[in-house]
Amino acid sequence: MPRIAAELARLGLTLPPPFQPPAGVTFPFPAVRIVGRRALFSGHGPQESHGRYSGPLGKVGRDLTPEQGYRAARLTALSVLGSLERALGDLDRVRAFVRVFGMVNSAPSFHRQPGVLNGFSELVLEVFGPERGAHARSAVGMAELPFDIPVEVEGEVEFD
Amino acid sequence: MPRIAAELARLGLTLPPPFQPPAGVTFPFPAVRIVGRRALFSGHGPQESHGRYSGPLGKVGRDLTPEQGYRAARLTALSVLGSLERALGDLDRVRAFVRVFGMVNSAPSFHRQPGVLNGFSELVLEVFGPERGAHARSAVGMAELPFDIPVEVEGEVEFD
Amino acid sequence: MPRIAAELARLGLTLPPPFQPPAGVTFPFPAVRIVGRRALFSGHGPQESHGRYSGPLGKVGRDLTPEQGYRAARLTALSVLGSLERALGDLDRVRAFVRVFGMVNSAPSFHRQPGVLNGFSELVLEVFGPERGAHARSAVGMAELPFDIPVEVEGEVEFD
Repeated sequence: MPRIAAELARLGLTLPPPFQPPAGVTFPFPAVRIVGRRALFSGHGPQESHGRYSGPLGKVGRDLTPEQGYRAARLTALSVLGSLERALGDLDRVRAFVRVFGMVNSAPSFHRQPGVLNGFSELVLEVFGPERGAHARSAVGMAELPFDIPVEVEGEVEFD
Repeated sequence: MPRIAAELARLGLTLPPPFQPPAGVTFPFPAVRIVGRRALFSGHGPQESHGRYSGPLGKVGRDLTPEQGYRAARLTALSVLGSLERALGDLDRVRAFVRVFGMVNSAPSFHRQPGVLNGFSELVLEVFGPERGAHARSAVGMAELPFDIPVEVEGEVEFD
Repeated sequence: MPRIAAELARLGLTLPPPFQPPAGVTFPFPAVRIVGRRALFSGHGPQESHGRYSGPLGKVGRDLTPEQGYRAARLTALSVLGSLERALGDLDRVRAFVRVFGMVNSAPSFHRQPGVLNGFSELVLEVFGPERGAHARSAVGMAELPFDIPVEVEGEVEFD
């Protein structure tokens, strides 16, 4: 078994299937765009095993607690890993996480975006380790996100 | 005639001239930054043929309908293509769209950013086709945008 | 003395020490992620010589004037240069600024984000000159930023 798949199994983590956009909207872009050895992933949100967005929806600091935001960011990481596995065939090809741009649907005066996004970063580091998993990161507060999802993350990895 | 220019003509599309910043502000950066085979484009907004920002201004979901937002995103794509043509000399050199980061000036509770940004993505796909035109994308809701423009997009292409 | 260090000294500029996150939060990511010849810098904010975030905090257009926002953006540039110097060993290795994504914690109806971010861009251009310092840029308005900082910037440089 490839090593990352084994690591995911050891951690009890399952990657979700391809994302299903909500009814009535078309997503005319791929989840992952590959150019050379770069794999850029589109904005992903928390996703359940049925393929659709996971609740709770809304703003962190009002509709979700920071702990629920953390969990949403963790689910977002699993969604990204699912997309990368389908695009690359095997997550062992990921040589380096590169960039993580983390967006939190933020209630007024909510300033704890970094703690929320740690749900994403810590999962990546658990799975890929501190060298391959390292990434430049921002964690910032958005006015609104599509479909009122609480967290959205886009970014880039390099692969062999 | 180069193929992309012919395609634009066939679609009845005209690229606008260089952007003219509003009075009183300096833009100390290029519309396109080239490094190696990467061309990164700065944040662009909807632009009319006179070179300045196009109205209507304001927030989508309050001052603009989603359909007006879609049209603003389409004008933004033409502005980006104009900048890329001037930077590269010829849009046929674009080998791959890579990344599109779409920002919508969003009214409270407006969650249909993807539909708005489809105005950008669909124009790129019409002009470059599904392979070259494919791009990683995010479409998110901003609190404010410069000069109250409704849509701003930054991103990257690769070229030969 | 390396040339950029001499230029900083000539301008009377001092780079701050490594950033110290506020108490109670972990930043599980590096200030700069290097992949190949690319150095991507994480979201940085205004930083004082003691290593922590610099005041005033809050929203530009309400808690800070545009001029205070400009100064915060300038301090953010110094913070980024400090991180790049530590990551690369020497700022003379910077071959090209590539991308600057500038986020302003914006009061409602504040639309002068470009003027604020000029504090960042102009410092980069002073230090690196118009060719190496050139960068693709966006300057946009965020609903909230971590710890209520007024400005956050992420981006990328290429180096030799």
